[in-house]
Amino acid sequence: MVSDADGLDQRVDELIESWKALSPKEYEEHFLALDKITAQEFFLCLSSTDQAHVFTFLPPKFRTSLAKLLPLDDLVDLLQELSPEEKNELITSLDNWTKTEVNALLAYKEDVAGGLMNSRYARLRADMTVEEALKYLRAQTQANLETIYYAYVIDSNQILVGALTLRELFTAKGNESINNIMTMRPNLITIPENIEQEEMAKIFAETEHLALPVVDDSGKMKGVITIDDVVDVLEEEATEDFQKIGGMEALEEPYLKVHFFEMFKKRAGWLVVLFAGETLTASAMTHFEDQIAKAVLLALFIPLIISSGGNSGSQASTLIVRALALDEVRLKDWWRVFVRETFSGLLLGLFLGIIGIMRVFFWPNKESLYGHHYGLVSLTVGVSLIGVVMLGTLTGSMLPFILKRFKLDPAVASAPFVATIVDVTGLVIYFSAAKLFLSGILL
Amino acid sequence: MVSDADGLDQRVDELIESWKALSPKEYEEHFLALDKITAQEFFLCLSSTDQAHVFTFLPPKFRTSLAKLLPLDDLVDLLQELSPEEKNELITSLDNWTKTEVNALLAYKEDVAGGLMNSRYARLRADMTVEEALKYLRAQTQANLETIYYAYVIDSNQILVGALTLRELFTAKGNESINNIMTMRPNLITIPENIEQEEMAKIFAETEHLALPVVDDSGKMKGVITIDDVVDVLEEEATEDFQKIGGMEALEEPYLKVHFFEMFKKRAGWLVVLFAGETLTASAMTHFEDQIAKAVLLALFIPLIISSGGNSGSQASTLIVRALALDEVRLKDWWRVFVRETFSGLLLGLFLGIIGIMRVFFWPNKESLYGHHYGLVSLTVGVSLIGVVMLGTLTGSMLPFILKRFKLDPAVASAPFVATIVDVTGLVIYFSAAKLFLSGILL
Repeated sequence: MVSDADGLDQRVDELIESWKALSPKEYEEHFLALDKITAQEFFLCLSSTDQAHVFTFLPPKFRTSLAKLLPLDDLVDLLQELSPEEKNELITSLDNWTKTEVNALLAYKEDVAGGLMNSRYARLRADMTVEEALKYLRAQTQANLETIYYAYVIDSNQILVGALTLRELFTAKGNESINNIMTMRPNLITIPENIEQEEMAKIFAETEHLALPVVDDSGKMKGVITIDDVVDVLEEEATEDFQKIGGMEALEEPYLKVHFFEMFKKRAGWLVVLFAGETLTASAMTHFEDQIAKAVLLALFIPLIISSGGNSGSQASTLIVRALALDEVRLKDWWRVFVRETFSGLLLGLFLGIIGIMRVFFWPNKESLYGHHYGLVSLTVGVSLIGVVMLGTLTGSMLPFILKRFKLDPAVASAPFVATIVDVTGLVIYFSAAKLFLSGILL
Repeated sequence: MVSDADGLDQRVDELIESWKALSPKEYEEHFLALDKITAQEFFLCLSSTDQAHVFTFLPPKFRTSLAKLLPLDDLVDLLQELSPEEKNELITSLDNWTKTEVNALLAYKEDVAGGLMNSRYARLRADMTVEEALKYLRAQTQANLETIYYAYVIDSNQILVGALTLRELFTAKGNESINNIMTMRPNLITIPENIEQEEMAKIFAETEHLALPVVDDSGKMKGVITIDDVVDVLEEEATEDFQKIGGMEALEEPYLKVHFFEMFKKRAGWLVVLFAGETLTASAMTHFEDQIAKAVLLALFIPLIISSGGNSGSQASTLIVRALALDEVRLKDWWRVFVRETFSGLLLGLFLGIIGIMRVFFWPNKESLYGHHYGLVSLTVGVSLIGVVMLGTLTGSMLPFILKRFKLDPAVASAPFVATIVDVTGLVIYFSAAKLFLSGILL
C-alpha cells in the first residue's frame, strides 16, 4: 500500500483514534485548536452521538456552520441527540427551506425508513427530454443533494411514477423523452415510509441498489435512503442480536461508552430472570435427593449431563435466530427445521452418548470410582445424553419460531435461556433413566 | 404502500420464494419455461451459488448470454462456484477483453479485496477539461461499467493520482481542468489489493463512501469495490461470528442449503471438544464425592451454581467478541475492560448471591428441605455465587482478548466454551466454600 501518511483522512483517523482516551476537558481543548478544514473533516467522521458531544462545548456560530456541512438525514440524527434547548437553537439558525424539511423528517420515529431518509433527491418530469433532464439535474446538483446516482420522476401531485440511473441518462440520445427510458412505477422497488429499519435493510441486502425511494400510502415520493445508512443499520441490528443471544438486553451505545450502571442494569435483569429459572433446578433436585443419597455417584455426572444439553441448545438457537434474522428460514419453514433438527439432535445425542458410555466404561479405575455396576451407570449416562442433547437441540431450534409466531423477538431465545429450560428438564431425564436402569441395584 | 403486484421485481421475488421447496428436476423445468426477460431478472437476483446451480441444467449458449449480464465481479464469483470444466467452457466463450480481466480477477483469493473488486471503472486523465471528461465518460459508460459515481484519474503508468465524484464534475465549469477539481492521491482513501474482506468492510463502515479504489503496492489502480459488495461481506462476517459464538464452526451456506452431514460435522466437532472439557467436571466431582455423601443437600445447588457462572460468562464473552469485531474495543483496551468487568462481575455476583441467600433463607419449608443449618448452607451458596459469577464474567471478557493477542479468532470464546471452563472451576469454588463454612457441622 502506498503511504497515505500526509492524507487528511489518515490524519483525521489518527485523531479520532488517539483522542479516545482523552478526558472531556482535553477533548474540548484539542478540538478547538484544530484548523478549520481538519475540524470540519473530523466532525463529519464522528457518529451523531459524538457530534452532539462536540456541540456541547462549541460556541453557537461554529455549531451552525458545522451543522450545515451535514447531509439532511445526518443533521436530523444529530438533532435527535441534542438536548431540547440545543435542538431548538440549532433549528432556529437554519434557513427556512431546511427548517421545513428538518421538521418533516423529525416527525418520523428514529428507527423507521422515514427517520433515515433524505428528503432532497434529484427529481425530473416524465415529459422532459434527456438533454433538458441533464441540464435540470446540473442545476439541482448545486443545491446540495446527497445523491444524484438516481433521478426520480414525479408527477404534479408528487406521485412517484418512475426512476432512472444517471447512467441511463448518459447513454440515451439527447432528444429522447424521459418517459421512454425510465423504469416505470410498478417495476420499481419502493420503501414504505413507516417500515422498520430492519425490514428496510433486508430489502437493500436482497436487491442490489445504492439508493431506494421512500413513498407514503398514496404513492407520494417522500425521500431517498442511501445504502450507506443501511450499512449502519445492519451493524446495529446484528449487534443487538448478538447481545440478546448472549443473554442480556441490547445496549444502545458502544461497549466503552455505555455508562457502567446502565450496562449493569441490562445485564442484571436477564441474569436474575435466568437465576430464578435455575432455582427450579434446586427444587427439582430435592425430588431426587433420596436417589443421590443412595447412589452418590449419580451426582458426579450432573454437570456433564446438563451442560451437554445446554451446549447443543446454544448451537441450535444461535443458528436458527440468525437464520430467521436473515430470512434464510421463515416461520412457515418450521416443520422442515423440526424434522431436520430432530435427526440432528438424535445423531448428535447418539454420538455424545456413545462417547459418554466409553468414558465411563473404559476409564482406568472405573470400579473404584463408579462401583461394580459401572456398566449400568454408563448406560444411564449414555441414554440420558441422547435424551438431553435431543431436548436441547429441539428446544433451541423451536423456541425462536414460537417467539416469532407470537410477534416476539426470536433473539430472546438466548443461549443461556435455552440452557436454563434444558437444565431443569435434563435433570428429570437423567434421574428417570437412573431409576429405570438402577432400580433394585443401586437405588 | 402502493401495490407493486404487477411489477417484475415483485414477480421475481415471488418466484424465488415459491421455488425454494422445488426438487432440482422441477426447478429446472420451471426455469426453462420462463420468458427471456423474467429468466434474466430471476438469474440476476440469485446468489452465485444458486446461479451455478442453474448453470448445471442450462444449454451452453444460454449460459453465455446470462453470464454476459453479470457485472465483472459477480461473474468472477459465479466462476468460482462452477466445476473446473464448466468454468473453462464459460471462460472460453467470453470475448478476449473480458477473458483477460476475468483471469486477472480469478488470480486473487476469494476473501481479499482483489477478489471482490470490479476492474472496470470510469477513468480520466488529469489534463482533461471538465467538458472533455464528461464526453469521455459518456463514451466509456456504453462499455458496461458497474459504477460511474466516481471517476478515477490515473497517469500513463496506471498510477492512481486522484478521484472525483460525478457531482463534482457536474458542478464544475466546462473549461476547468480535472487536475484542479479532483481530490489528490494523499487525501484519497485507498484499499490495498490483498487486504482481508473483513478489514475492507470496516473501512467502508467508518468512512461513508459508495465505492473505493483498490491499488497495488506500487500505487497502480487495480479496480473498484462498491458498497453493495460490502453489505454482503458484513452479513457474512456477522453470521460467522454468530455461529461461532453459539459454539459451532461457521457454515458456508444458508441453513436450509447446508448438507445435513456437513452441518452435523460442524456441530459435532465443537460438541465433542466441549464434552471432553465437561468430563473434567465428572473427574472434579469424584474429589467431592465424600462431601456429597456426608451432605447430600450440597448436590441440590450444583446446577444453580454452575449455570450462573455459565450465564454471566456467556453475557461477557458475547459482548466483548462483538465489541472487538466492530473495533469498539481494541487489544490495548484490555486493561480498561478488565477493570470494568471486575466491578461488573463483583456487583452482579453480589446481586445474585444475595438473591441466592434469600432463596434458601426464606424458603417456606427450608428446615425440612435444607436441615437445621440452612443459614450456613445459604451462606455457602451465596459466597459461591459471588465467586462463580465473577469468574464467569472475567473469563468471558478476557478470553477473547487472549485469543486475539495470539492471532486467533476471538469468537472461538463461545458461550458454551466459556461455560465449560467456568463449570469446572465453579465446582471447585463451591465445594471449597462448603468446606470453609460447613466443616465440622455437616462435613
